[in-house]
Amino acid sequence: MKFEAEPIGQTTSDGDDSTVVLYPEYRRGLLGLDGFSHAIITWWADNLTDVEPHDPLEIQRVLYTGGPDRTGVFSTRTPRRPNPICLTVAMITSVDIDSGVVRFGWLDTLHETPVLDIKPYFPASDRVQVVGLPGWFASWPQSLEESATFDWGSAFVENS
Amino acid sequence: MKFEAEPIGQTTSDGDDSTVVLYPEYRRGLLGLDGFSHAIITWWADNLTDVEPHDPLEIQRVLYTGGPDRTGVFSTRTPRRPNPICLTVAMITSVDIDSGVVRFGWLDTLHETPVLDIKPYFPASDRVQVVGLPGWFASWPQSLEESATFDWGSAFVENS
Repeated sequence: MKFEAEPIGQTTSDGDDSTVVLYPEYRRGLLGLDGFSHAIITWWADNLTDVEPHDPLEIQRVLYTGGPDRTGVFSTRTPRRPNPICLTVAMITSVDIDSGVVRFGWLDTLHETPVLDIKPYFPASDRVQVVGLPGWFASWPQSLEESATFDWGSAFVENS
Repeated sequence: MKFEAEPIGQTTSDGDDSTVVLYPEYRRGLLGLDGFSHAIITWWADNLTDVEPHDPLEIQRVLYTGGPDRTGVFSTRTPRRPNPICLTVAMITSVDIDSGVVRFGWLDTLHETPVLDIKPYFPASDRVQVVGLPGWFASWPQSLEESATFDWGSAFVENS
């Protein structure tokens, strides 16, 4: 059983600009999105050739400072997954239906990444008040807002 | 350009039981997931035949109490989307790698829904402190925890 996913648009991540441009046939689906502050962008990680191959189900290198030697793919957010469908929560800075351009505060995507979906962010379903994490994440930011100023270099092991 | 997604397992949503069972070849990818309290489950909405067809890009019926007459698909969480890939944030109650069974507090999926991915929930990337929403969502729960006891019947227009 397989399912076919088709991009609705793609990203431009040029310098500080984190933008999704929808293809013309999908643009009217943006009606009303400008009423939301944040969205969840779903994208297909089609550009993984720069990373050396490894077992996709078990990350064997230590990725996180203080973390275990091995961890399963479903315990990480690596894009190298059985289905390389990633998601990014981001602040919406502008929506233009006519041009299909949606600008975001920041996206962790490469330039011209295929975008599969944009969904509004709902606290009722997407915000968890009390979250438990393995101990080595204790010093990580507690929210998307805190992440903006966090020293991410300290969170990952060098050359990982 | 199309991408092929393949299920890693499926749900059982039998009564109060919200469970994902992974296929054998993916089970060792669960290593370490039991250290997290919450996960994001990505699933393919393959069972939409019970809803009458309508324009998938523009929801024309009023769905939300007090909401607008029309809204675009990318401003809603309807599973009837260009790519019917849905995501659910849920509390993890148990992880068993040998059997591939992951139990969750609650999943909004039908029985035997194909599951594409399980990702750990990170406050740093998934929790937004200050969220803006259209006015008709003002009375909605402010978190996943509050949603558990909310009167959801009041949020949706009857027969929607």
